[in-house]
Amino acid sequence: MSFSAQLRKEVDPIWKASFHHPFVKELGEGTLDLRCFRYYVLQDSYYLTHFAKVQALGAAMANDLKMTARMAHHAQSTYEAELSLHENFMKQLGITDEEKASFVPAPTAYAYVSHMYRAAFAGHFGDILAAILPCYWLYYEIGEKLKECRPKEPIYQKWIAAYGSDWFRELVEEQIARLDEIAETVTEVERERMKQHFWISSQYEYLFWDMAYRLETWPIQRKETECDANERIKTS
Amino acid sequence: MSFSAQLRKEVDPIWKASFHHPFVKELGEGTLDLRCFRYYVLQDSYYLTHFAKVQALGAAMANDLKMTARMAHHAQSTYEAELSLHENFMKQLGITDEEKASFVPAPTAYAYVSHMYRAAFAGHFGDILAAILPCYWLYYEIGEKLKECRPKEPIYQKWIAAYGSDWFRELVEEQIARLDEIAETVTEVERERMKQHFWISSQYEYLFWDMAYRLETWPIQRKETECDANERIKTS
Amino acid sequence: MSFSAQLRKEVDPIWKASFHHPFVKELGEGTLDLRCFRYYVLQDSYYLTHFAKVQALGAAMANDLKMTARMAHHAQSTYEAELSLHENFMKQLGITDEEKASFVPAPTAYAYVSHMYRAAFAGHFGDILAAILPCYWLYYEIGEKLKECRPKEPIYQKWIAAYGSDWFRELVEEQIARLDEIAETVTEVERERMKQHFWISSQYEYLFWDMAYRLETWPIQRKETECDANERIKTS
Amino acid sequence: MSFSAQLRKEVDPIWKASFHHPFVKELGEGTLDLRCFRYYVLQDSYYLTHFAKVQALGAAMANDLKMTARMAHHAQSTYEAELSLHENFMKQLGITDEEKASFVPAPTAYAYVSHMYRAAFAGHFGDILAAILPCYWLYYEIGEKLKECRPKEPIYQKWIAAYGSDWFRELVEEQIARLDEIAETVTEVERERMKQHFWISSQYEYLFWDMAYRLETWPIQRKETECDANERIKTS
Repeated sequence: MSFSAQLRKEVDPIWKASFHHPFVKELGEGTLDLRCFRYYVLQDSYYLTHFAKVQALGAAMANDLKMTARMAHHAQSTYEAELSLHENFMKQLGITDEEKASFVPAPTAYAYVSHMYRAAFAGHFGDILAAILPCYWLYYEIGEKLKECRPKEPIYQKWIAAYGSDWFRELVEEQIARLDEIAETVTEVERERMKQHFWISSQYEYLFWDMAYRLETWPIQRKETECDANERIKTS
Repeated sequence: MSFSAQLRKEVDPIWKASFHHPFVKELGEGTLDLRCFRYYVLQDSYYLTHFAKVQALGAAMANDLKMTARMAHHAQSTYEAELSLHENFMKQLGITDEEKASFVPAPTAYAYVSHMYRAAFAGHFGDILAAILPCYWLYYEIGEKLKECRPKEPIYQKWIAAYGSDWFRELVEEQIARLDEIAETVTEVERERMKQHFWISSQYEYLFWDMAYRLETWPIQRKETECDANERIKTS
Repeated sequence: MSFSAQLRKEVDPIWKASFHHPFVKELGEGTLDLRCFRYYVLQDSYYLTHFAKVQALGAAMANDLKMTARMAHHAQSTYEAELSLHENFMKQLGITDEEKASFVPAPTAYAYVSHMYRAAFAGHFGDILAAILPCYWLYYEIGEKLKECRPKEPIYQKWIAAYGSDWFRELVEEQIARLDEIAETVTEVERERMKQHFWISSQYEYLFWDMAYRLETWPIQRKETECDANERIKTS
Repeated sequence: MSFSAQLRKEVDPIWKASFHHPFVKELGEGTLDLRCFRYYVLQDSYYLTHFAKVQALGAAMANDLKMTARMAHHAQSTYEAELSLHENFMKQLGITDEEKASFVPAPTAYAYVSHMYRAAFAGHFGDILAAILPCYWLYYEIGEKLKECRPKEPIYQKWIAAYGSDWFRELVEEQIARLDEIAETVTEVERERMKQHFWISSQYEYLFWDMAYRLETWPIQRKETECDANERIKTS
């Protein structure tokens, strides 16, 4: 069994939990509360900004120039996906610039991003790949599963179409193949660490849907300062 | 108002939530379930191993040789504290080597550590300081608050004594002074980022007590594989 | 005067020394010994492999997603330039795979690459830009200066054409504008450090021609081991 | 043969070149021009400031908490050695604060430091160890070789005594043992890279004596600006 197949098998219960999460199911059925999706889009946009940077770190730590170029291409693709997908969603959902400016990453989004940077710091190229791969691969599988769904909400249709596309599938397959290639050149201890990174990213993927469905916030809220309150009175 | 005083003021509601968390209160009263403390000791030991590494990263990113030496001294102090505190606790609590070997960081402990590494990667020396300071400073304040408590459980007494000591106070004051010094040399944007790091670490400190009190686990558990189960049957 | 104009002025004597270096002059005149150029191509190929990685590090440390994407695009462009330029040269110059496999970076090429990584480690995004810019900008100026030269050697013609192209000019101008933009957001101390990185890269650019012209080697050579010698006897 | 013994054997010609370099020989005989030594002290002080930071990076990348603590201890030791050795030398040699403020690292000192940072960035803990070890080990061997020398110049006596001390020997032996330990846990490719780092540091050690003996400068000097010149006229 290839290394990627082993990883995939090991996280199967976690990915299944993602497939059955109400956020995903209701998105497919078209019944997902748009407030949850709107929250998701903002957090995912934050996530992808850092995902591109971690891909770029991968380019910086790659083994040869061609791999550097491919990882850089993936970072650029993230930017293009972000532009075509989220920017459109933001317009359609009426997300204002003010809202974007006051954005605060939710605990789960923040922790997932930190985890990816840490994989890069504490590990090698293979750890980066292992940490970013669930985001590719799980989304592809979800795209496949929801392919036949025809949610009434056009935004949800568009979302499903993006991750079920051939363009996306090719990127995913490329990274899976790369992971398997790298796995053959490292020690058993390193493969174990790569597994851990893949496993933790899989948990975060599940938690990400949950975060959006629950509109997660930090446990202790920033209190409105007097100054802010006055400001609001003035401007309202 | 000094920069550190501003930070302290801003996180006051979060730190108050820590002071009043049942883990902390019951520790002072001596009623805390030892299972929670045992869990805490294992997770904190994991945390401190990485805390020392982040202090060492601080040493590597410091502005001059004296600061490098001081930060390195702090990293060593973490090791010594770990030895004298946790190693003893582990013995007294009967934590086995097997238990240590099968240790898995809980989501909050993992996320807090990732956050500190990320502050180091994404920022500068000041960001590291801001991210590690709540761990010093909040523990010192808790040590002070619990000083008069005389919990019956000797382990809880010892824990309280460690963070209320002069040795610890001096380390804390040194880092606060260093943060203020650094804050004067950076831009407003950087000070804002340092504030964020301090704020997030404060949230994680609160979540850390909560993690231990709830014996937090990852959302989707690793299923015992057949192989493991067989193993257990054989060895039991 | 813009920040980039200040930098350019300060390094003028160093860049002039590059313009007048015999490697550059003889390349324009077509009299450069092909052994020097062949040596140069191998060392430059090594340099560019790392240049792309440092550009990728820039992408990872950029301030926003668009800048990440642009820096990633530059890393990819380095790969494409390397493919179209050096790979062709290597064929035309008859550089064998064996020769490539036994390649050792010369002291100057090694030190220049180390300097770029160090700028990234010790500094911020602006330091990376400052460290990589001379490689863009100086080559563009040399391309401009040699534009009218018609060296008989077709390889030299091709080399000149590459760096005098519009495609290359646009990349250069983009990075100069980016540097000026960044310079306005940082402290005086950081601008000073950026100047240092630019200044040192300018010295290395000069030393790079010199390295190739002198066929530079490490001071103390690796002695042929008996084993290697026997090998050679057997295979000859 | 242990890994460290293999490394030592491979660099033997380079280390011998160091032993016989006029800087080292004349230091032992007491005939070394004090201008060279003064230049050396300033460059070495710069080098050690970064050496301590790279040791701290080692602490941050170590495999366990004890190793983190030991590497941090080494970083502190570098600070103490710097204090007791160079600070004294600087006073005795009459090096002014002005002179220190206008210090510019020479090409070789700069390149050696960059190399150490790069080993840390591009590699793992073992690469850091391999890159810093020649500075320990070669100095210890030189200390041993010069032990019987009684140069008239008391500064040279003190220098020799420092590197021939038991205190220093123990630090050296500890790092050699650590390198051998690490070498057993990594792949052949990684051991090869560690060898490269050790080999290059050995070259830089040789070049460092040479730099000081030749009072090395950057190839193209910074021209005195009009402004500086005027300043000098006014203040003289």
